[in-house]
Amino acid sequence: MKAYAVILAGGRGERFWPMSRRDFPKQFLSLFDRNSLVRMTSRRVSSVCPLSAQRFVIDRPLGRVLARQLKLTKQNFVFEPFGRNTAPAIALAAAYVARRDPKSVMVVLPADHLIEDVKSFQGALRFAIEVAVTGRLVTFGIRPERPDTSYGYIEVGPLLTRSAAGKAFAVRRFREKPDARQAKQFLKKGSFWWNSGMFVWRTDVFLKAVERCMPEFFSDLMRFQGFIGTSREASELKRMYARTKSESVDYAIMEKSSNVAVIPASFDWDDVGSWLALERHFPKDAAGNVAIGESIRLDSGNCLTMNDAGLVALVGCRGLIVVRTADAVLVCHKDKAGEIKRLLAEMRQDTKMDKYL
Amino acid sequence: MKAYAVILAGGRGERFWPMSRRDFPKQFLSLFDRNSLVRMTSRRVSSVCPLSAQRFVIDRPLGRVLARQLKLTKQNFVFEPFGRNTAPAIALAAAYVARRDPKSVMVVLPADHLIEDVKSFQGALRFAIEVAVTGRLVTFGIRPERPDTSYGYIEVGPLLTRSAAGKAFAVRRFREKPDARQAKQFLKKGSFWWNSGMFVWRTDVFLKAVERCMPEFFSDLMRFQGFIGTSREASELKRMYARTKSESVDYAIMEKSSNVAVIPASFDWDDVGSWLALERHFPKDAAGNVAIGESIRLDSGNCLTMNDAGLVALVGCRGLIVVRTADAVLVCHKDKAGEIKRLLAEMRQDTKMDKYL
Repeated sequence: MKAYAVILAGGRGERFWPMSRRDFPKQFLSLFDRNSLVRMTSRRVSSVCPLSAQRFVIDRPLGRVLARQLKLTKQNFVFEPFGRNTAPAIALAAAYVARRDPKSVMVVLPADHLIEDVKSFQGALRFAIEVAVTGRLVTFGIRPERPDTSYGYIEVGPLLTRSAAGKAFAVRRFREKPDARQAKQFLKKGSFWWNSGMFVWRTDVFLKAVERCMPEFFSDLMRFQGFIGTSREASELKRMYARTKSESVDYAIMEKSSNVAVIPASFDWDDVGSWLALERHFPKDAAGNVAIGESIRLDSGNCLTMNDAGLVALVGCRGLIVVRTADAVLVCHKDKAGEIKRLLAEMRQDTKMDKYL
Repeated sequence: MKAYAVILAGGRGERFWPMSRRDFPKQFLSLFDRNSLVRMTSRRVSSVCPLSAQRFVIDRPLGRVLARQLKLTKQNFVFEPFGRNTAPAIALAAAYVARRDPKSVMVVLPADHLIEDVKSFQGALRFAIEVAVTGRLVTFGIRPERPDTSYGYIEVGPLLTRSAAGKAFAVRRFREKPDARQAKQFLKKGSFWWNSGMFVWRTDVFLKAVERCMPEFFSDLMRFQGFIGTSREASELKRMYARTKSESVDYAIMEKSSNVAVIPASFDWDDVGSWLALERHFPKDAAGNVAIGESIRLDSGNCLTMNDAGLVALVGCRGLIVVRTADAVLVCHKDKAGEIKRLLAEMRQDTKMDKYL
């Protein structure tokens, strides 16, 4: 059964401002090597799903940015008219994949996650496909290292199946992002794993779940499928999307399905959700500073500097994030890293700031 | 008696890095308006000494930068082969001025000071010239506003002369930069004024003082004067400078002379010796932030931002100086502003940093 990668590349993440911009979000940034996160994602999955079997769900403006980073053809794109969270996005991709190859498997991957142990990832993916072929909606769970409140959690149930390649478990419950106290309990119990947002399933099994959980959207989607390849494709898609609720696939489908399996990730994983998450992947100097780009520091500790060109100089600084781009500088205390979203919200109120968004 | 302005424009100030650079020091920066400090200095004195009577003491590379900011002819320049502090620089200028116009007055001004009350300055200058014509070495004293340890002080003696235009006092003693305790005493006593580094005297009276205080240099200088305008001018000057000690005019001449007068400045004055000094000239927002250039701040207070282009964004920052230029960013805690010199010393040890100096 042929596997298609569905890569969710339409994200508008703001937490890497000023490196990430409205027209150049996180997935296009080369945070870790010369390749962007989306390019790393495409390469990582390519031994299982070659580029011709990769589908990028994205809007048209960002699609043009993507086309500068990867050699893609028209069939690689699933264009969304606008964002409606992951449930419509993945279902739309399923409609395209099913039309071409109804007996197929989908590997759903966010474009902006970091996995460095590519071999383990590919092994786990092959195992997940084995499990998915039996009719399960498979998700990858990440064993938590810390009581993180920025992830959803999966409460793991009994073992479903095991092989030399891995283990798959039933899911007891999906849990929304917890508060700090709950997150600590989850960590202590050991049976709560982070929800990675990576899924593997048979296209037909997933569409059945959409039919069951989102019946109105499903009938719109099947109707839309008839317009694929016609002159009305774009307008019909826009009409359908306008009628569709914004929902995550976790909430709309996974939580409401009983045929879910979770596979513990045997590989490293990070959704790199903030400057502080990024920092964890780089070596620190004796004073606890991380420098990505040219930097000089005097009497400074526990600082992160990032600049793709030029110099950042720190004197007498503690606990700061300093990011320099061609046209903007951010200086943010680490304790306030979560406020960058609020900064951007303020900037959106001021037309003079528009060019920096 | 015709007055010549001798503008000391060869300074290599480092305290405004990264705005100021080795090849573009402070006097060329437009810190306060669209005009650079040296241009403001030239304009400020021009009603007393028109541009044709202004002499800029500078080295040749910086002279080229100056020529881009002011419309100068060859006679406006007194080129130093290298810096030897103010005593040789002013004496050299005196040799040039005396050769052209021995019965003249010199108005010696650092290029990088800020005086905003131009009318009062010009009035004080005219009074200083009246006093200088009587044979005094006149200096301007600044009544201190705070116990500043970065200035030399002048202990004021009895009144020498007064007119409707001002008062001139004898000088009891020149005092080097004091420590904090001494500076507080000076402030309390009221008879200690800051030494502004601005002087007015008859060219012949000053050259007599050079003869008395620096006899070897004086005889070299008189010998050199004979080569002005000849093909050997540059080489003879270099030879003389190589033999000359680096000394300030305060130390070499003023402290050793009895015919000194000090005039209290009736105008505002600042040598703008640091980012913190600069900050004092700009309005603060409610949280005590000063923004020179486009900036946005969230949960931040007591910060100074400066950028000639682009945006500086602060989140959760306290007491920082943030300066952005085309190729470098400085983030410096205000308590450590004095360490910028040490930062540059470190940068000079690293050839990769050379392009940022």
